[in-house]
Amino acid sequence: MQLRVDLLPRNHYRDVVVLIDVLRTCTVAPLLFDHGLKRLYLCPSVRVCRELAQRDGALLIGERRGLPPEGFNHANSPAVLRAVGLKHQTAVIYSENAPVVLGRLHGARHVLLGSLANAAAVVRRALALAREEIALVCAGYEGSEDLDDSFAAGLLSALLLSQRAELQPVGAAQLALTLLTVFPDPLEPLWRSRAGRALQQFMLHDDIALASFISQSDQVPELRQVVPFQRADAFCFDVAVMSHASAA
Amino acid sequence: MQLRVDLLPRNHYRDVVVLIDVLRTCTVAPLLFDHGLKRLYLCPSVRVCRELAQRDGALLIGERRGLPPEGFNHANSPAVLRAVGLKHQTAVIYSENAPVVLGRLHGARHVLLGSLANAAAVVRRALALAREEIALVCAGYEGSEDLDDSFAAGLLSALLLSQRAELQPVGAAQLALTLLTVFPDPLEPLWRSRAGRALQQFMLHDDIALASFISQSDQVPELRQVVPFQRADAFCFDVAVMSHASAA
Repeated sequence: MQLRVDLLPRNHYRDVVVLIDVLRTCTVAPLLFDHGLKRLYLCPSVRVCRELAQRDGALLIGERRGLPPEGFNHANSPAVLRAVGLKHQTAVIYSENAPVVLGRLHGARHVLLGSLANAAAVVRRALALAREEIALVCAGYEGSEDLDDSFAAGLLSALLLSQRAELQPVGAAQLALTLLTVFPDPLEPLWRSRAGRALQQFMLHDDIALASFISQSDQVPELRQVVPFQRADAFCFDVAVMSHASAA
Repeated sequence: MQLRVDLLPRNHYRDVVVLIDVLRTCTVAPLLFDHGLKRLYLCPSVRVCRELAQRDGALLIGERRGLPPEGFNHANSPAVLRAVGLKHQTAVIYSENAPVVLGRLHGARHVLLGSLANAAAVVRRALALAREEIALVCAGYEGSEDLDDSFAAGLLSALLLSQRAELQPVGAAQLALTLLTVFPDPLEPLWRSRAGRALQQFMLHDDIALASFISQSDQVPELRQVVPFQRADAFCFDVAVMSHASAA
């Protein structure tokens, strides 16, 4: 079985894809499910996010230029959301990057959201689901490879290989594994990434720190449904109960 | 002016592109010009390479599965070619990767070949030519990002920034610069790259060592002409006399 790493999304997926967007969507998502969330939508259109939230009475999360758009409940900040009491069953995250990448993962049988935050859990789940390939796909930053996601791909690769030695590393797996070995502290690549620098400009240092904690969550969001709207697709995730069974 | 790094070739180039293929085409090319070569063709078809060589009486360089194809003079090995007396005015390199990448650099006004071997010279030449953007484009290995080219992009980025502080790093420039800082010895990323591992399997350790010597050549191959053949294009390079003038 192949362990494939793409430092940016590519084509021709065929089995399990773990989408990695460390700062911050794939860090926030497992934390929300830790709070008891039942369903999460990711969508790249503010208007569709509002529509979904009205329909489902959902929590609206996201920001544009550092601030939540009108009518949104919270910024996409793990530090803030961790402290917020979550009474909603559904949340909608407005994000410019992750949903666009999700729309390009043609051929994938399973799509999971992964980050440092749910590292051990997403590795277990990917191994339970995969038949021929686990592809770790980095979302990147503004269309380029970035350090935060590349480092996380290295960490997940190392965990995968430690549990299934016969996995064949292909693509940029070797490069990602090397990044893991040269950064002893996970905070450093996150801090030095372009995404991390952007957060520093908005004084969101806590978000970077929180995203560097490894395996703090056992939740693995899985793509269940793509809901088409006129402006953009919304990607609906939940967490499989199975993922706990397979962890045993 | 922008300093852009692509860890794999992308689209929309518009000014100066430095193609980086450390192991080994862009290391071999400047060394050949050091030997007095006047013209170099890169081509991804063995048959077209032979045709070009017959027409121009050129030296035929390249290998498939570790060995030079029939009628070829030498493998694409910097360690071997450095020691060979070069009496030819023209050389043709068969290469599967670099010419394919060259065919995708639409919009570039100038295309240079760069590596650690000609680092200082290619940086000078790029700065002399550029108006709006210097794009360092890594060739990668079998369609994925690789450590050798990514590290070299970091080194060239650092040299460019040291000479022109107002350059704006975009794309993966930050990631490449980080690679530079985490590897104190340039041999290490080359050794650990997929391209480097492949060379180790063919016992070509000397090629890796030689490719790690920084600024050993002042030659900067520049793309002059694309020669269309039925099977594949051939990319014709020479070195500008200007490059020495602009270095002064």
